[in-house]
Amino acid sequence: MTFLEKLLEASRRNRSWLCVGLDPDPESLPTSLKERENPVREFCRQIIGATRDLVCAYKPNIAFFEVLGESGWPTLKEVIDSVPDDVPVILDAKRGDIGNTARMYAQAYFQGLGVDAVTVNPYMGKDSITPFLEYEDRTAFILCLTSNPSSADFQQRELGDKPLYHEVASMANLLNRDGNCGLVVGATRPEQLRPLRQLCPDLPFLIPGVGTQGGDLESAVKYGSDREGNLAIINVSRAILYASKEKDFAESAGEKAESFREQINLFRRSKVSSPV
Amino acid sequence: MTFLEKLLEASRRNRSWLCVGLDPDPESLPTSLKERENPVREFCRQIIGATRDLVCAYKPNIAFFEVLGESGWPTLKEVIDSVPDDVPVILDAKRGDIGNTARMYAQAYFQGLGVDAVTVNPYMGKDSITPFLEYEDRTAFILCLTSNPSSADFQQRELGDKPLYHEVASMANLLNRDGNCGLVVGATRPEQLRPLRQLCPDLPFLIPGVGTQGGDLESAVKYGSDREGNLAIINVSRAILYASKEKDFAESAGEKAESFREQINLFRRSKVSSPV
Repeated sequence: MTFLEKLLEASRRNRSWLCVGLDPDPESLPTSLKERENPVREFCRQIIGATRDLVCAYKPNIAFFEVLGESGWPTLKEVIDSVPDDVPVILDAKRGDIGNTARMYAQAYFQGLGVDAVTVNPYMGKDSITPFLEYEDRTAFILCLTSNPSSADFQQRELGDKPLYHEVASMANLLNRDGNCGLVVGATRPEQLRPLRQLCPDLPFLIPGVGTQGGDLESAVKYGSDREGNLAIINVSRAILYASKEKDFAESAGEKAESFREQINLFRRSKVSSPV
Repeated sequence: MTFLEKLLEASRRNRSWLCVGLDPDPESLPTSLKERENPVREFCRQIIGATRDLVCAYKPNIAFFEVLGESGWPTLKEVIDSVPDDVPVILDAKRGDIGNTARMYAQAYFQGLGVDAVTVNPYMGKDSITPFLEYEDRTAFILCLTSNPSSADFQQRELGDKPLYHEVASMANLLNRDGNCGLVVGATRPEQLRPLRQLCPDLPFLIPGVGTQGGDLESAVKYGSDREGNLAIINVSRAILYASKEKDFAESAGEKAESFREQINLFRRSKVSSPV
């Protein structure tokens, strides 16, 4: 089964295009977990337990595990293994390097950690991305237009008559021969989502920036999804993970996730009934 | 002591602008090490032992450790710890992410692993780089013009009247307030090195691509170094690491490193005596 098939099936089963980002900041964990042997693992497992029927995917961010040092990798592996087998895992790693190094990263994540997809950085061009695409049943989400303020520094600058991020999107279309490319497109720039979706009608979009970063959910869903209201993976991290810092953190995360799922579905229905 | 001071001191002491890249490909290790408990660690330690008086820095590539899974981080840490304290370590990680994530990476590498410098990717703009620069005594080497063929895809494209990589170099100049920025500039594009050095007279250049990737050493030294023939850190990985796959691999690596050091010094002298 390919990543895209697994994603579509999870999305259908859970009626959801919500992805929960697992960015377990050691300083933001609930006090009640701080005595545990491995608070980060426990936190992520409980978040997954409370949201597993409400999501289309999980997106662990590897930086939040690397900061744990030696225990980072085994903790990340255990967290990934605790995601239900039929829910895809997108590793947020944003890697990009020359061919022989990219192959090491792809092997580490697809074979070692067993994730279904990974985010990659396009600055070094296509030969830094193709080693990931050789895994035909996995997917590489290429950074296109990111949600941070400095995405204006380079991504939005004009190369000829098009912004750089459009050129990246066009490259993703070309690299998508096996149907295993996606794009990362921030929700903080809704006016730029619609032309990107027109340019790339078939690619899954991973859309971070909703919630703490202030991205607009309605635009993200309406402009980021395809004609059927699909393929817009709306990622929310902090607004769900830290909905409560008390003992009820998992329950609160579940309620928050359900609320995001329902809002997303509302906007999807309104899009499909009155297409934009 | 800042990274730059440490670099200049190591370079003076060892009369060297050679950096040895530690990319220990498990499949390329000497057969004689394959029975060891941790062949990668043993390999790197022996390479470091044979070259420590011949280099200005080491550059471990984190991908080659991540591929080891759970043992990757402790192995990388042990390898870094086996570098003499007065030789700087540049971690080749090419990270780039939004602020709160970049902070995690910086903490993981500068505090956790204790490296002196790290390579970073500029695609997401300056707010993805500044968390690294908050460590004033460390350095962030920003990818500018890389050594792989696909660097033509985006880096060399024109943004207005300048190529994208020139815009990245200009940003590095602006970010260099504390003297802790550098650039990664591939040796495979010598004709582009000279204008970059003119644009950034004060930044250290990390120059990979000599050796297996076919970059021209003479141009890298002449056009990449500053007026005194300094600040061009010439990285060689595979051509030194795998000089021999037999039991004499470390001795061969040492000889190869010495030969690179002498060639670099020859080109430096000829530059300083007849400035280009």
